[in-house]
Amino acid sequence: MAGDPDERDFIQSIERGFAVLLAFDEDRINPNLAELAAATGLSRPAVRRILLTLQRLGYVRASGSRWSLTPRVLSIGQHYSASHAMIELAQPHLLELSAKTGESASLAALDGRDAVYVARVPVRRIMSINVSIGTRIPAYATSMGRVLLAWAPDVIVDEIVAGGLPALTKHTVTDVEAFLGVLRQVRSDGWSIVAEELEIGLLSVSAPVRDRSGEVVAALASSTSVGRSSVEAIRSDVVPLLLDAAERISADLGHKSSARREGFY
Amino acid sequence: MAGDPDERDFIQSIERGFAVLLAFDEDRINPNLAELAAATGLSRPAVRRILLTLQRLGYVRASGSRWSLTPRVLSIGQHYSASHAMIELAQPHLLELSAKTGESASLAALDGRDAVYVARVPVRRIMSINVSIGTRIPAYATSMGRVLLAWAPDVIVDEIVAGGLPALTKHTVTDVEAFLGVLRQVRSDGWSIVAEELEIGLLSVSAPVRDRSGEVVAALASSTSVGRSSVEAIRSDVVPLLLDAAERISADLGHKSSARREGFY
Repeated sequence: MAGDPDERDFIQSIERGFAVLLAFDEDRINPNLAELAAATGLSRPAVRRILLTLQRLGYVRASGSRWSLTPRVLSIGQHYSASHAMIELAQPHLLELSAKTGESASLAALDGRDAVYVARVPVRRIMSINVSIGTRIPAYATSMGRVLLAWAPDVIVDEIVAGGLPALTKHTVTDVEAFLGVLRQVRSDGWSIVAEELEIGLLSVSAPVRDRSGEVVAALASSTSVGRSSVEAIRSDVVPLLLDAAERISADLGHKSSARREGFY
Repeated sequence: MAGDPDERDFIQSIERGFAVLLAFDEDRINPNLAELAAATGLSRPAVRRILLTLQRLGYVRASGSRWSLTPRVLSIGQHYSASHAMIELAQPHLLELSAKTGESASLAALDGRDAVYVARVPVRRIMSINVSIGTRIPAYATSMGRVLLAWAPDVIVDEIVAGGLPALTKHTVTDVEAFLGVLRQVRSDGWSIVAEELEIGLLSVSAPVRDRSGEVVAALASSTSVGRSSVEAIRSDVVPLLLDAAERISADLGHKSSARREGFY
């Protein structure tokens, strides 16, 4: 990044603070200084100062030589949720969709190359889909991502394509022309079904959520697995429920559907 | 803080980075530089450098002269959820409790003087309780907080009491001796009902969730309002469902209840 014109405005200790905070994960629940230094590539003295700073701010706590996150880190995401009325407003529609389909219901937004879960209703089942709010999945290989990309500006799609479409399973669409064709199809259908392109056994279907201006601001998804459903069953049974729920969330956001605007009902 | 022995290890730009990030809220969804400077007490040039840093890290984005949070900020909290298996594991029990009671179900952990929502199932209703994950409520005046405090070390309770118990409604218990008596009662009952001490009209009941070691790690709550229920109805109808759900979450965390251990069933 040397020579970057923005470099003089970049505050490296902020970057390092986040790097240490994000080094706490499933594999490092209670790391010690050495483990955090190894995970972040920072020196132990640097990690120590950052931990003491984060501790004083209340984001981490020490127990002996081990460190862990406090629930205060949830406050940061809460500010995202609070500043996006869509999330609270979508919750009852997610619950209703999940109750009608018997499957999990999720809402995601685009962030770089990923779709990020911003709200979710899980289902109780042994083989349920195990993701929580903030989880990131590659946009190009998922129904939520494809819905977000289908209505995104060309420059965003170009960036995704330029970054490559690696095969995640043998079913992943990896050819650029085929991928662009899929996005056109999603735009024309008004929804996306993706079967086993992210993970073998996983089926999902998504539809766009629009705001007052008509912009697609999120994707609403219903996910299931090959053993419980099929692409055909999703198309006939889930798509109408999904479109209805997505339209109701959009309406709550102030969007008037073209059908309504044109007086069809 | 001058003279604080930890001062030399404290990295002020990390504190300022979080201050700017947390200045985005319901009242400042798309703030400009001047609004963020006013909210944080930092100079405009300082806020500008922090925003450019956060932008390069992907946490904020600019649209004209206005700034907003990106869904990437959710990743930070996701690391908390991922490192606390309890949260994903509790979800189906929250859903079931909410379905049985027809009310919202929530899970909270203690952070300083506050109970913080770490998981929640809302209900669809016009007068529903509008909180999202990461929302903070004062521990002393809420059923979740009292459950967390009832089994907390004395030093934590002493700190809460030392910080004062201001009246939030005319029903808030503000007398220290009375408050300590309430905590003893919660410990003896095994649950806490709080009626209109946080907000007029709000009723909630909570029970402890324990981990493998028997430590109380969270409070499970069911919340309703005066028009829909009463303390008596909660005691007879909701408490058994709540205790059952809290025990099942605890069992999933590896806790063996004393009743089970002693062979009562």
